[in-house]
Amino acid sequence: MSVKIYALGGYNEVGRNMTCVEVENEAVILDMGVYMDRFVPLQDEIKQCSTKTLINEDVIPDDRPIHHLKKKMKGIVLSHAHLDHIGAVSWMSSFYDCPIITTPYTNRILQLKEENDGIKLTNKLISISPNSSYKLSDKIEIEFILATHSVIQSSMTNVITPKGNILYSLDYKFDNHPVIGQTTNKQRLRQLGKEHTLALIVDSTNAEKENKTYSESVAKEMLRDVILGMETDGQGMFVSTFSSHIARLKTIMDVSNNLGREVIFLGRSLFEYINAAEQLDFVNFSDTAEMIKSPYRCKKRLEEINKNKEKYLVVATGSQGEPNATLSKIINEDIPLHLNANDFVIFACGVIPTPMIQANRRMLEHKIHHKKGRIFKDIHVSGHASREDIRDLIKIVSPEHIIPGHGDMGKLASVATLSTDMGYTLGKNVHLLQNGQHVRL
Amino acid sequence: MSVKIYALGGYNEVGRNMTCVEVENEAVILDMGVYMDRFVPLQDEIKQCSTKTLINEDVIPDDRPIHHLKKKMKGIVLSHAHLDHIGAVSWMSSFYDCPIITTPYTNRILQLKEENDGIKLTNKLISISPNSSYKLSDKIEIEFILATHSVIQSSMTNVITPKGNILYSLDYKFDNHPVIGQTTNKQRLRQLGKEHTLALIVDSTNAEKENKTYSESVAKEMLRDVILGMETDGQGMFVSTFSSHIARLKTIMDVSNNLGREVIFLGRSLFEYINAAEQLDFVNFSDTAEMIKSPYRCKKRLEEINKNKEKYLVVATGSQGEPNATLSKIINEDIPLHLNANDFVIFACGVIPTPMIQANRRMLEHKIHHKKGRIFKDIHVSGHASREDIRDLIKIVSPEHIIPGHGDMGKLASVATLSTDMGYTLGKNVHLLQNGQHVRL
Amino acid sequence: MSVKIYALGGYNEVGRNMTCVEVENEAVILDMGVYMDRFVPLQDEIKQCSTKTLINEDVIPDDRPIHHLKKKMKGIVLSHAHLDHIGAVSWMSSFYDCPIITTPYTNRILQLKEENDGIKLTNKLISISPNSSYKLSDKIEIEFILATHSVIQSSMTNVITPKGNILYSLDYKFDNHPVIGQTTNKQRLRQLGKEHTLALIVDSTNAEKENKTYSESVAKEMLRDVILGMETDGQGMFVSTFSSHIARLKTIMDVSNNLGREVIFLGRSLFEYINAAEQLDFVNFSDTAEMIKSPYRCKKRLEEINKNKEKYLVVATGSQGEPNATLSKIINEDIPLHLNANDFVIFACGVIPTPMIQANRRMLEHKIHHKKGRIFKDIHVSGHASREDIRDLIKIVSPEHIIPGHGDMGKLASVATLSTDMGYTLGKNVHLLQNGQHVRL
Amino acid sequence: MSVKIYALGGYNEVGRNMTCVEVENEAVILDMGVYMDRFVPLQDEIKQCSTKTLINEDVIPDDRPIHHLKKKMKGIVLSHAHLDHIGAVSWMSSFYDCPIITTPYTNRILQLKEENDGIKLTNKLISISPNSSYKLSDKIEIEFILATHSVIQSSMTNVITPKGNILYSLDYKFDNHPVIGQTTNKQRLRQLGKEHTLALIVDSTNAEKENKTYSESVAKEMLRDVILGMETDGQGMFVSTFSSHIARLKTIMDVSNNLGREVIFLGRSLFEYINAAEQLDFVNFSDTAEMIKSPYRCKKRLEEINKNKEKYLVVATGSQGEPNATLSKIINEDIPLHLNANDFVIFACGVIPTPMIQANRRMLEHKIHHKKGRIFKDIHVSGHASREDIRDLIKIVSPEHIIPGHGDMGKLASVATLSTDMGYTLGKNVHLLQNGQHVRL
Repeated sequence: MSVKIYALGGYNEVGRNMTCVEVENEAVILDMGVYMDRFVPLQDEIKQCSTKTLINEDVIPDDRPIHHLKKKMKGIVLSHAHLDHIGAVSWMSSFYDCPIITTPYTNRILQLKEENDGIKLTNKLISISPNSSYKLSDKIEIEFILATHSVIQSSMTNVITPKGNILYSLDYKFDNHPVIGQTTNKQRLRQLGKEHTLALIVDSTNAEKENKTYSESVAKEMLRDVILGMETDGQGMFVSTFSSHIARLKTIMDVSNNLGREVIFLGRSLFEYINAAEQLDFVNFSDTAEMIKSPYRCKKRLEEINKNKEKYLVVATGSQGEPNATLSKIINEDIPLHLNANDFVIFACGVIPTPMIQANRRMLEHKIHHKKGRIFKDIHVSGHASREDIRDLIKIVSPEHIIPGHGDMGKLASVATLSTDMGYTLGKNVHLLQNGQHVRL
Repeated sequence: MSVKIYALGGYNEVGRNMTCVEVENEAVILDMGVYMDRFVPLQDEIKQCSTKTLINEDVIPDDRPIHHLKKKMKGIVLSHAHLDHIGAVSWMSSFYDCPIITTPYTNRILQLKEENDGIKLTNKLISISPNSSYKLSDKIEIEFILATHSVIQSSMTNVITPKGNILYSLDYKFDNHPVIGQTTNKQRLRQLGKEHTLALIVDSTNAEKENKTYSESVAKEMLRDVILGMETDGQGMFVSTFSSHIARLKTIMDVSNNLGREVIFLGRSLFEYINAAEQLDFVNFSDTAEMIKSPYRCKKRLEEINKNKEKYLVVATGSQGEPNATLSKIINEDIPLHLNANDFVIFACGVIPTPMIQANRRMLEHKIHHKKGRIFKDIHVSGHASREDIRDLIKIVSPEHIIPGHGDMGKLASVATLSTDMGYTLGKNVHLLQNGQHVRL
Repeated sequence: MSVKIYALGGYNEVGRNMTCVEVENEAVILDMGVYMDRFVPLQDEIKQCSTKTLINEDVIPDDRPIHHLKKKMKGIVLSHAHLDHIGAVSWMSSFYDCPIITTPYTNRILQLKEENDGIKLTNKLISISPNSSYKLSDKIEIEFILATHSVIQSSMTNVITPKGNILYSLDYKFDNHPVIGQTTNKQRLRQLGKEHTLALIVDSTNAEKENKTYSESVAKEMLRDVILGMETDGQGMFVSTFSSHIARLKTIMDVSNNLGREVIFLGRSLFEYINAAEQLDFVNFSDTAEMIKSPYRCKKRLEEINKNKEKYLVVATGSQGEPNATLSKIINEDIPLHLNANDFVIFACGVIPTPMIQANRRMLEHKIHHKKGRIFKDIHVSGHASREDIRDLIKIVSPEHIIPGHGDMGKLASVATLSTDMGYTLGKNVHLLQNGQHVRL
Repeated sequence: MSVKIYALGGYNEVGRNMTCVEVENEAVILDMGVYMDRFVPLQDEIKQCSTKTLINEDVIPDDRPIHHLKKKMKGIVLSHAHLDHIGAVSWMSSFYDCPIITTPYTNRILQLKEENDGIKLTNKLISISPNSSYKLSDKIEIEFILATHSVIQSSMTNVITPKGNILYSLDYKFDNHPVIGQTTNKQRLRQLGKEHTLALIVDSTNAEKENKTYSESVAKEMLRDVILGMETDGQGMFVSTFSSHIARLKTIMDVSNNLGREVIFLGRSLFEYINAAEQLDFVNFSDTAEMIKSPYRCKKRLEEINKNKEKYLVVATGSQGEPNATLSKIINEDIPLHLNANDFVIFACGVIPTPMIQANRRMLEHKIHHKKGRIFKDIHVSGHASREDIRDLIKIVSPEHIIPGHGDMGKLASVATLSTDMGYTLGKNVHLLQNGQHVRL
């Protein structure tokens, strides 16, 4: 009996993650994501696109290499609620007659997506807590090991098979001071180090950074410094970040209260992610902050806010310069809330390093400059493990095989180099796969 | 009666800062620094170099444009204890028959430099506290306005003349949570905004960064995360930073205590800067940490430490890869304290962006990799104001004229662009000077 | 009597060039261009845009600083046929009641633009040959001095006034071996060096490059190498370049003949620029090459070509990745001519370094990779003077004043640095202007 | 019977190339080079260094993985005369009791190296012409296939074994218009495509460049433009390039004759490489140019030249800023030939992208700026195949296995990606090796 691992998406690029593990006559899919750079420009027309078109345009993974496993498929396991890990479900999951397993927060986000994409999933949805497990089939048990990342209830997925554990660690960081929730479950990882861990599929996104990825507490200290430490009196303040990053939003809430400004959350995706987090009792923003789902339907309120901008701190969607998001609408004067000279625009995020998104963002910054707004950029810490976090994970888990994922060949090669430094051998127990390839262990 | 401002050094590069203010028949020099990139490779032979050679090699500023002011010179004012602001004193000050005015900490560092350079200064040394002033002459009064930076007792220098204030703000940041000492004296700056401030000479080093420069509290949070959050058990830990950065050293001390390791400070320049800070009661490291001035004279002790590296955290000089500093000696096995595989090397600093220093540093990193050490880089926040801090300073002080300093033409031009955005006009009340030029206000 | 020079466009960016020279009660405008990065995304809807909107969106220059000169305006002089120098004429020239002076080739392109933009110019069009002059008014005579650039009949514009010559050198290079036409008229420039040249407005785009800009003969050698030196047998070959670059097109023609393939020019803008050049007898491509203006109207012919791609070399519009240009249509399979695996795509051009254009281009390259096409990039030499060409021009003309144009502050500052190196003084006879500012000489 | 290929040097970096091929009970070494970045700083003291030290400092390859093959070794084959391919011979070859096989030009350079390094090689030196072969032993025959590169008589090495050909293509380009010698022997390569070629070891240095590497004829056109096209009258002209690049030197000779200046070659390594080329009748520079081996021994002549610089064009060693080379001595005024303001310094070369060499070069440029010299940079075409040349080679030879060499993991991975694009499979018939690893085919 052998184990096969199929690289389907995210092995040639950062995005559209999808991997499949086959154990004799059973198989399981890990993640089904979109490639953000291709997804964003198509967003408006995506309901009209076929699965085939989306594969052709590199928006979603090409799953033909596992079509022959269709009947063996026992489950689709989604590690966390980011679109590059769950965004392709609407177009791909129904091909497989098996349940989708997630944590509760991911489950809710998936249901919201169903509504927004206008697609009814045919798969059964099963949600289990982080740090618990679920027996999928005879040979495959799924365990979610809680891992800190930039969204609630992220997990590493441990695929427990008769041949040993296969630990899928896309995406994680070792945050020792998370703003929400617990730290990565190192205790369980240390146990894996003592059991037989056949393979580690590891997050390579930041493998080239020679450092540890900083805790969210560093971002908190940065934001506290910028929001409370400048000459903000009498000026409008706009903040933007990834809408799914609830911990970052909580920090913004906390700091703004110290400033004595009321927080307004403005835009649909902020509304949805916060709503889901509140339903699961992770946060309670609604008590003190105002939530405005659609800026078009609340023009009166926006006019009031616009007249008293010095009393508010507005958190708006559109941190990546998306032309249809709220921040762009504010800058373009499409809604009655405006940017005046010397108003603050604070980007509590990085920029996704892909061409179309970077161009959108630079265009937005240009317009802010034109209106003499004050820009604060890159107030951010990453959610992905850096080189030394990867080394620690390998050290702790001590897997038999290593398969780098979540990156282009340069990033994957960087993990390969690290692994050989640690005594592994490329081609023997370190495997560089590309989309469409597989390895038999 | 007019005021003339002479740009002598630091207007074509980041380094060897020197400016002169002339008011009718009196004049004052602000700073006398070295250019680090040229200074470091010459350090061993510098005692043999003449002033003329050092000017020719671009190590120190060329002061010929003010030689005619020799008899009018009333003082040399040094803003803070960094070498790019005080390093040229040994070779230049004796030409001028006037006192040198500093804060107490700078005064001590200057005296240590005298010894190390083997040069006896002929000028009288006067030290006054930050946030106090000193009447230099009939028309010129000097005021030190406390400013946060990366060394103790940094100040902006306010030159008070009958024609108004000339505020020299090289180098500053607005640190709202400094680890040592008080925040920048904004209260006094706001007062300047109401008095007549004729000119602002402003720090351009980071003018291209669209942000606020973060507080030292951010670096503290980063270091806490890296030092306490990794798999360090049983491994050696080496940290390096700028020796003059006492606040950073304090953070390293604090964090290491939480780790339960004893701190060893290793190397001459660490010894000297800490010693000076202890004499002025800013810190008291000696109580709990061990200080080793010369690694060559303490071989036995180093051997002991080497055998029990897991009990210590060693802070070593040489963060910029200087070939003769302690960290290089450790890596090269020149002393009995060694780097083993998986030991930690933590750079709590940036790299000065000049070619020779960058090459030294990369060479050192290459050797650490070769020995399989674990590198953590750029754990650092800058000591220089970013674009939005500069905007705040201009807003608060509202000077009649702006003169950007401390940078190449690109950086100076960036401040000019910011100023014209704020309503100033290039050529009229914003002046782009280069080394050797002056402007009459 | 004094001379005033107004910087209106192209002094904060590379693009939308516009300058005005005022001599007592007369004035003249030099160039009226668009900013390509803003122009390209708006191109489809531009007929609906008002002049005010286009100014607001930074597409065209803001000419309000010279509205008071309306009645003094004696002419609008256009130096060459590129859109960043003539593209704004349709929306701005009618405000001024004066003629437009160009060389014959620019004249023709302007008339084609009129048709395409659907706007009838009210100004009289006057065309004079390069190396001739025209008396605009009592005090102003215009002289076109032939200058090599990347379009036919480019000129430096010399504004001859009673106070001396004002030489406007946007855009030029010293091409000693141009593929079409003559070299820059250095003889006349040397004469200017002996006459009184009051000011030189100088092209700063490439001022940071430490070199001479290479002759077009270098691009010819590159193309010869790539087109004739690869394993092209049996494969399709697509080449793209700037449609206005007739010399580059001529090289492609010449080289392709050696390869034994017939050249097809495909796309509207290629058709128009070539047509204009043929009417003026600069080239005669139509004799041997096939011209297809609209790919949509010639589907049958494209199907034939598609079946025998190995016999043709197709030159297509869309070198910057413009989504509506022919090359994009080929890659997207919008027309019956397709890209197959191993077909050649040769970019005989650079990429304009602005965000939206770069993103378009990278998206196109991604799609070509996806189809396994072979990409050849940056087969190009610039049309703009580099640092040492600028130095030569200053040396030859030896102007009293220097005003850098055609660049952001960094590029302008780079010319300022060069000038001070040559003995000029910033603020005295080197003037750094920004859009909206002027200087009195 | 199987074939093993050992990666010994150049698989983690660009430099110190060394590979070994084992066929049953016989073996052969391909190249023995130094790592230039580590070699240059040690050059003065290298005679005192042991082989072990040089291995430890990463100057030469670590050959311990093939020590067990010592008695099987039948030959050391050197592909061309560059130091990163032959520089380690002095410290490594005597360990192996076997002959060294080279082309005649490499042979001569090797003998000069012996003298300069003060080391007498114990191996027998055999020299054979390009496009000929030599039977090393029972199972191994060596064939040199002429390949264009940036030094005379470069070859691909074909190792002919009973299991098929192993083609070692470090370093090559497809130059269709070489200035000296013939083009790469494509005819023989096409034949290999029909025979059984077991493996291709391929040059990855430029694999990331999406283009064809240009012919030397492009560099010739660039140099013609720069040297003949500027305002050089009355000024000194200094040119520097790689001393081993005889074709580039020939171009400089040719162009300078058109300028009417006499060429002076100045410096030891220029003297030696030219001398060797003249002995083999490749060029005859001595007839018209002057050769000065040591600037220290010809002070009188240098003084004369210095007084009449406008009559000469001086080609000096030291293009990479090496502190002890002639160009540095000129700039530092160590010899009686000086650089004056407005003199020309033309770098007909790139800069090797390693930290110490880059720092040296930038330091030199800084000094040239300081003296107001005019710098012309990067007048160069590479000697290494780009992405599309690599694709052509794979297409022509159609090897069973591909092994990328001559680069760090990023560059090797880039060839791997290209290969999988062409239908190969990573891990199956594309092998990513690192220094110290081997693969069995």
